Amino acid sequence: MRVLVCDQIVGDKKDEDAMDGLTVAAAQQCVIEAMKKLGAEAVPLSQVLGRVLAEDIRANRDQPPYDVSAMDGFAIRSADVANASAVLEVIEDIKAGDMPRKMLGVGQCARIMTGAPVPQGADAVVRVEDTAVVDDAQVRIQVAVRPRNDIRDRGESMRNGEVVLNAGTEITPGVVGMLAMVKAAEVQVYRLPRVAILSTGDELEGLDDPFDANKIPDANSYALMAQVQALGITPDLLGIARDEPEHLKQMLQRGLQYDVLLVSGGTSVGVHDYVRPTLEALGVQMKFWRVTMKPGHPMAFGVAPLTWVFGLPGNPVSSMVCFEEFVSPALRCITGHSKLFRSTVTAKLARDVKHKHSRTEFVRVLLSKEGDVLVAMPTGDQGSGILRSMAMAEGLLVIPSSSKGIAAGEQVTVQLLSGTEFQAEAGGGY
Amino acid sequence: MRVLVCDQIVGDKKDEDAMDGLTVAAAQQCVIEAMKKLGAEAVPLSQVLGRVLAEDIRANRDQPPYDVSAMDGFAIRSADVANASAVLEVIEDIKAGDMPRKMLGVGQCARIMTGAPVPQGADAVVRVEDTAVVDDAQVRIQVAVRPRNDIRDRGESMRNGEVVLNAGTEITPGVVGMLAMVKAAEVQVYRLPRVAILSTGDELEGLDDPFDANKIPDANSYALMAQVQALGITPDLLGIARDEPEHLKQMLQRGLQYDVLLVSGGTSVGVHDYVRPTLEALGVQMKFWRVTMKPGHPMAFGVAPLTWVFGLPGNPVSSMVCFEEFVSPALRCITGHSKLFRSTVTAKLARDVKHKHSRTEFVRVLLSKEGDVLVAMPTGDQGSGILRSMAMAEGLLVIPSSSKGIAAGEQVTVQLLSGTEFQAEAGGGY
Repeated sequence: MRVLVCDQIVGDKKDEDAMDGLTVAAAQQCVIEAMKKLGAEAVPLSQVLGRVLAEDIRANRDQPPYDVSAMDGFAIRSADVANASAVLEVIEDIKAGDMPRKMLGVGQCARIMTGAPVPQGADAVVRVEDTAVVDDAQVRIQVAVRPRNDIRDRGESMRNGEVVLNAGTEITPGVVGMLAMVKAAEVQVYRLPRVAILSTGDELEGLDDPFDANKIPDANSYALMAQVQALGITPDLLGIARDEPEHLKQMLQRGLQYDVLLVSGGTSVGVHDYVRPTLEALGVQMKFWRVTMKPGHPMAFGVAPLTWVFGLPGNPVSSMVCFEEFVSPALRCITGHSKLFRSTVTAKLARDVKHKHSRTEFVRVLLSKEGDVLVAMPTGDQGSGILRSMAMAEGLLVIPSSSKGIAAGEQVTVQLLSGTEFQAEAGGGY
Repeated sequence: MRVLVCDQIVGDKKDEDAMDGLTVAAAQQCVIEAMKKLGAEAVPLSQVLGRVLAEDIRANRDQPPYDVSAMDGFAIRSADVANASAVLEVIEDIKAGDMPRKMLGVGQCARIMTGAPVPQGADAVVRVEDTAVVDDAQVRIQVAVRPRNDIRDRGESMRNGEVVLNAGTEITPGVVGMLAMVKAAEVQVYRLPRVAILSTGDELEGLDDPFDANKIPDANSYALMAQVQALGITPDLLGIARDEPEHLKQMLQRGLQYDVLLVSGGTSVGVHDYVRPTLEALGVQMKFWRVTMKPGHPMAFGVAPLTWVFGLPGNPVSSMVCFEEFVSPALRCITGHSKLFRSTVTAKLARDVKHKHSRTEFVRVLLSKEGDVLVAMPTGDQGSGILRSMAMAEGLLVIPSSSKGIAAGEQVTVQLLSGTEFQAEAGGGY
């Protein structure tokens, strides 16, 4: 039986310290072990891009349905053109969608279009560029060809009944093409989660609230919204819970109606942080509430009967980094994906980066190319309040907790932030 | 004045051969030169992810609006804690969103939360972990700190009125966070094009048509639909134009009401191909109709008064490759992006790839990692009818036209197919 990190900590060791400071890798494992795929639903082909197949897809015919020409040209008998410069009689004109009406005899050929069925008697196609018109009824074939030349065999692309796409396949444009090819107008894919986003804190000003110089605009709700959208999911924004126990409780109760609840702020150790006790009072089993990372130390995760709950830091940069490391893999997992983590690249560090603490650090970087070598340049001030550094960043440079700093020129691992590319294993060597 | 490839060919050289066989690079240049950005429109923050800003965005306040604590802890006078183990009087409790009511005197401190304003008289913050409670009204500070310790300066993140995001910025989740931070509930972004997709050919069976073993399902319309969707644009599918001049003309006329028309099939040299002459009769100025590439030789591009027209090969793999090389950069360009082309990676080729012709070849490959080295493995049969090879592919290995083949172990350039990552220049060394 596999070792469950969370249960081990919660059930066996009851180790408050461990829960209070999991490594990034242990926290990721804890989150992923708590996930399970959502059910399947039927979705029309126009809306399946990016989703994951929940069923095997079979071919509904041989494709092509008969031997067809791979080129515009002439269907011939290869024996007739063994000597270059053979002149053949054109007995028919076959285009894609036509069925041939005649059988080729010796010295005969048919004009044929790409994708059109090869007539009986023919065993090869000569492309039009290798022929010359003699008159309306005759053509000169200027090359010798082997049998099967430029013929696509019946069933070459797919054979009736065979599985052409397996359950678990992520639906790319090429997969959409394949689904259309087998006329799958509607397919079973894993359902998307209903995701709620809640910000907390009296200091926050909502997007539609009047300007108050003493408040801080709620950036978290929208940055998280966009991170969820980037995974193809449309979240609901619940707004801002005030630092008032009853209001917070009502908002969290609303959030616990969803599959996934993201709460930002209120998970730190201060006396005003009600989020963790309120969640626990509402039946959420907290799995951890601190991770030894920077930014993002106060990062919590818990499980309720209906809902996976992520407590993200109040600070926008920390919240976004924690989303990338924990929420994004979780959302990928429950929607059926097998590649859960951001793609990584190896890059050369452009300047020294200090590392004086014992937490895994995520440094926002820009990437550029020097010849074939990728170069990672930190985006300037890495203060966790500097959201601009996250807006500019193309990747997160991962500094392992044990590092004593990295010198300019050394090789580093960078998680790519843009794009929807993911890989099977978490990269970065935490 | 810059050299315009298309005009040079059409206007000066009148070189049918050149139009009939542009290199990939020349054809890309021709397409991009014919593009211009669409206009701007106001879009709410919930729908701007992936779009491009058409306006500079300015900060609407200092952020933070005053000096704030970077930690949960105690605001102190640094001079008071020069000796470790100072005991200070707690005169106030300041949380985020509160304004301090008192000024610190000698030997006094205030309990303070992350993000809360630093009171007058204080010049540093000591985090709670470095303190010990003495009683309700007193705390022991266990470390000496320097002035400004754990204080975030007013305006550190942004200063009122400064440009925080430039026009031309692609809107990532971090940018959405920044926009929320300056309370940009609605922003000016470049408009998305109206895109029409039309398939041609009597051999095609529509997705909702009854099964006919002698026909070929129309995969192109849906693969192209998904490729357009992957760029954040919802296209209209016009259906299938039959090989009948009047029907084709009507369908093309409908398509010419759009910003971009993608026609697949019917651009090859066969006698049944009416698409090019019909487009020309409808006023489309054809810029080229062949590109020296494989797959994808019959690839056409033209310009009408309202519409950019792409004539894509009828074969689904060729059509998808041509979309990647020509249509995708064009759609990126008109929607305001500066990074138009697929990201490329350098990989080691897993097995020999032959190259016997003089066209640029795009080989579908899978990518895997051997340690830090990316390995590119062709996806098996590269026949242009094998759509499965495109559905499986993670990238396109670019073989330059001059190549005599590439041996296993050599370094190759691969354009990444998945993801929404793009780079400024076309990679691949065509």
